Amino acid sequence: MSELRGVTLAEIAVRVGAEPGEYAAGVVTRVAAPETADASAAVFAMEHEALQRALASGAGCILASRKLRPNAAASDARVVWVAEARYAFAQLAHQLAGEPEEASIHATAVIGEGVSLGAGVVVGPGVVVGAGCVVGRQCRLEARAVLYPGVVLGDRVVVQAGAVLGSTGFGYARNPQTGEYLLFPQQGRLVIEDDVEIGANTTIDRGALGETRIGRGTKIDNLVHIGHNCVLGRNVVIAAQTGISGSSVVEDGAVLGGQVGVGEHATVGAGVILGGGAGVLSGKKMRGPGEVFWGRPARPLKEYLRDLARLKHR
Amino acid sequence: MSELRGVTLAEIAVRVGAEPGEYAAGVVTRVAAPETADASAAVFAMEHEALQRALASGAGCILASRKLRPNAAASDARVVWVAEARYAFAQLAHQLAGEPEEASIHATAVIGEGVSLGAGVVVGPGVVVGAGCVVGRQCRLEARAVLYPGVVLGDRVVVQAGAVLGSTGFGYARNPQTGEYLLFPQQGRLVIEDDVEIGANTTIDRGALGETRIGRGTKIDNLVHIGHNCVLGRNVVIAAQTGISGSSVVEDGAVLGGQVGVGEHATVGAGVILGGGAGVLSGKKMRGPGEVFWGRPARPLKEYLRDLARLKHR
Amino acid sequence: MSELRGVTLAEIAVRVGAEPGEYAAGVVTRVAAPETADASAAVFAMEHEALQRALASGAGCILASRKLRPNAAASDARVVWVAEARYAFAQLAHQLAGEPEEASIHATAVIGEGVSLGAGVVVGPGVVVGAGCVVGRQCRLEARAVLYPGVVLGDRVVVQAGAVLGSTGFGYARNPQTGEYLLFPQQGRLVIEDDVEIGANTTIDRGALGETRIGRGTKIDNLVHIGHNCVLGRNVVIAAQTGISGSSVVEDGAVLGGQVGVGEHATVGAGVILGGGAGVLSGKKMRGPGEVFWGRPARPLKEYLRDLARLKHR
Repeated sequence: MSELRGVTLAEIAVRVGAEPGEYAAGVVTRVAAPETADASAAVFAMEHEALQRALASGAGCILASRKLRPNAAASDARVVWVAEARYAFAQLAHQLAGEPEEASIHATAVIGEGVSLGAGVVVGPGVVVGAGCVVGRQCRLEARAVLYPGVVLGDRVVVQAGAVLGSTGFGYARNPQTGEYLLFPQQGRLVIEDDVEIGANTTIDRGALGETRIGRGTKIDNLVHIGHNCVLGRNVVIAAQTGISGSSVVEDGAVLGGQVGVGEHATVGAGVILGGGAGVLSGKKMRGPGEVFWGRPARPLKEYLRDLARLKHR
Repeated sequence: MSELRGVTLAEIAVRVGAEPGEYAAGVVTRVAAPETADASAAVFAMEHEALQRALASGAGCILASRKLRPNAAASDARVVWVAEARYAFAQLAHQLAGEPEEASIHATAVIGEGVSLGAGVVVGPGVVVGAGCVVGRQCRLEARAVLYPGVVLGDRVVVQAGAVLGSTGFGYARNPQTGEYLLFPQQGRLVIEDDVEIGANTTIDRGALGETRIGRGTKIDNLVHIGHNCVLGRNVVIAAQTGISGSSVVEDGAVLGGQVGVGEHATVGAGVILGGGAGVLSGKKMRGPGEVFWGRPARPLKEYLRDLARLKHR
Repeated sequence: MSELRGVTLAEIAVRVGAEPGEYAAGVVTRVAAPETADASAAVFAMEHEALQRALASGAGCILASRKLRPNAAASDARVVWVAEARYAFAQLAHQLAGEPEEASIHATAVIGEGVSLGAGVVVGPGVVVGAGCVVGRQCRLEARAVLYPGVVLGDRVVVQAGAVLGSTGFGYARNPQTGEYLLFPQQGRLVIEDDVEIGANTTIDRGALGETRIGRGTKIDNLVHIGHNCVLGRNVVIAAQTGISGSSVVEDGAVLGGQVGVGEHATVGAGVILGGGAGVLSGKKMRGPGEVFWGRPARPLKEYLRDLARLKHR
């Protein structure tokens, strides 16, 4: 099987946008780290030292950053020079992985009434898909993932083990006389667009009256919490254990580090970067593509570093 | 069915404690946001702008804060003026929802020996209820919730998907010679009182020698951790990703924001409010009903703001 | 059965390294807190007050810290004086618990192809063990734990309910043209060594190209996240909701409090103690056995306290 999926270095060069050239013969069937690479494996190198390790390894193909070329000691027919070596390596890995697993629904999965499953969907053991859910093509629901009723997934969505989608939001109305809390209606829905990937044991609440929405291509790590009515844009990245409170907006291309906290009704603007552990107060709007914010409360990195320095050197 | 549950505006007015009056005819069968409201739906408004949106919508009933009445442009027979519009809206939603789901135990649930299940209990797919658990009336255990053996739930407790109740506490004794750790006995129990609601993938450990207890009416969000031997009072609110270390006490009516951390053997006093991300050191006692604490270590809001200002304007 | 496992005080004294002496007759079959102790129960005391409570209780055996002896009012034949009373108490509890549960695989567990299960393994309800996993002797996989394919566990590993081991790491390559993210290959493995204990709903990712490894005797609390390629040493302790980003190292005997955050490619040195909520920046190396670090960014406790004081008393 691996032979069928094997690719020559000349084919790789075309695929990753490298120059045509005199490449080593042989066929690559897998990606690897230099320590475990043999002639069937491709490795990658972004820095000079990594390139030295790659050249010293038995790898059959080395995807190396073009910027390293001028300083490379000698030519090696295994090297394919590319603009973005790590990205090219990931591309190659996807190509070698070939077709996705065949569609399958594990016998222990529980599929509710009126569920629509697209072509090529893989449903793992112990998964629960509530009534009326719509699951797009080639989605992968891994072991014990739970979709509450009515959740909508686009195509190629990956939900890792134990993640819970469409849970009841945390909204209550307080009885001013007794101090008791009454659940505010949580009858909205959750929509996950195409190519979203969701980590293990992450939780995303459905909307209260409206909807919660996760935009196309957004990637979410493990143990993340996203509250009801949040709207996340496209290609957002959210690292582990970050929490976003209800009704907040995260715009396209924002990057949130681990353990970030975002209050209610806040906005993280397009392309904004929140450092690990940053905290955004309720109602705040953080703006500026490429701008890095840090600390609690989150402030521009420069300001954060100045505050730290002040604390030290008075 | 919805016809049967429909209520007139005059009935709503009585129910929510509004004045009797000349209300619009028609029957309300559901609650909604203004954007999706038609004549069958009730909406609510707490502020002037929301009221304008509600009046412009097709909603059949508008639960509006009484304080907005003097400035309302004209009378509209759809408006029911109430002291607490959001609370009234939640009340109405519960009334319209009618009877809870019928009792049921999903075929894939695993119920241990000697378990007692009260009337009207709903047990979802993949739920595990350990031996000897006691589950009160009308509890709802959602998909894949786990109760370790011996956990006791009162009535109307809701456990969302993936939550784990009664897990082994994190207490170890260290061998001073080898540096190895030996589990301290974790043989206590976990008691959850009536009307507690617990979020998805939250974990609550059982007591070590004594018990862990969650008081009546307390509401806990997703991915919260509560350690062994903690005692939480009544009507406590705990937002997502907050963690409470072992043997701490949270008294009645306290409100903990998201990502709060509470050390061991600490006390969060009755009615205390901890802002998102606040940290309470082990052994500390935070006191003062209605007092707001913020930061790490947590301090009164005023002090926290002064500290922040000092850092900036020297 | 408890009779068979009962031990006399003289036997206990030998076991925990106490002096031989004139101990009370009778047999102990369980450990307990003073409030619930009768003649069949052992309790422990580390401080004077606890000793008073223990002496006033009906406990049949009192494991007390030797350092309390000079001030003890009178001799009591129930007291066994030991160097480490809490450790001795934990030892006794383990001894009384006797043999581990018999090996068993719950009918609802899903065991993949080519899985190797050691002698005495207990697999709980709803557990999923992926293809090719190796599970050592006397491991306990509790309800709904998930092992992705190829995960390797040593002997006596405990995995609590809902924990996910071997999930896909959070590594992506960004397409600089489109801003879209492509999963970096996550094909490595996860190795958990002997005597590791893992809390409920914790997640540990497998390696990207290499491996993630958790060293022998390490204890991990609930809702912890450990990223791909992390290497944890022996007898490390990690409290709840702590997160360790990819490719970081935590050396032998380090202690991480709750909600700690460790960036990528960081090192927490042998024996280092990180206070609750501490944050270690990416690439940082924290060194010094027994050294306590606190705050974000983490700094030596003394420095952290000085910074706090400066903020207050200017």
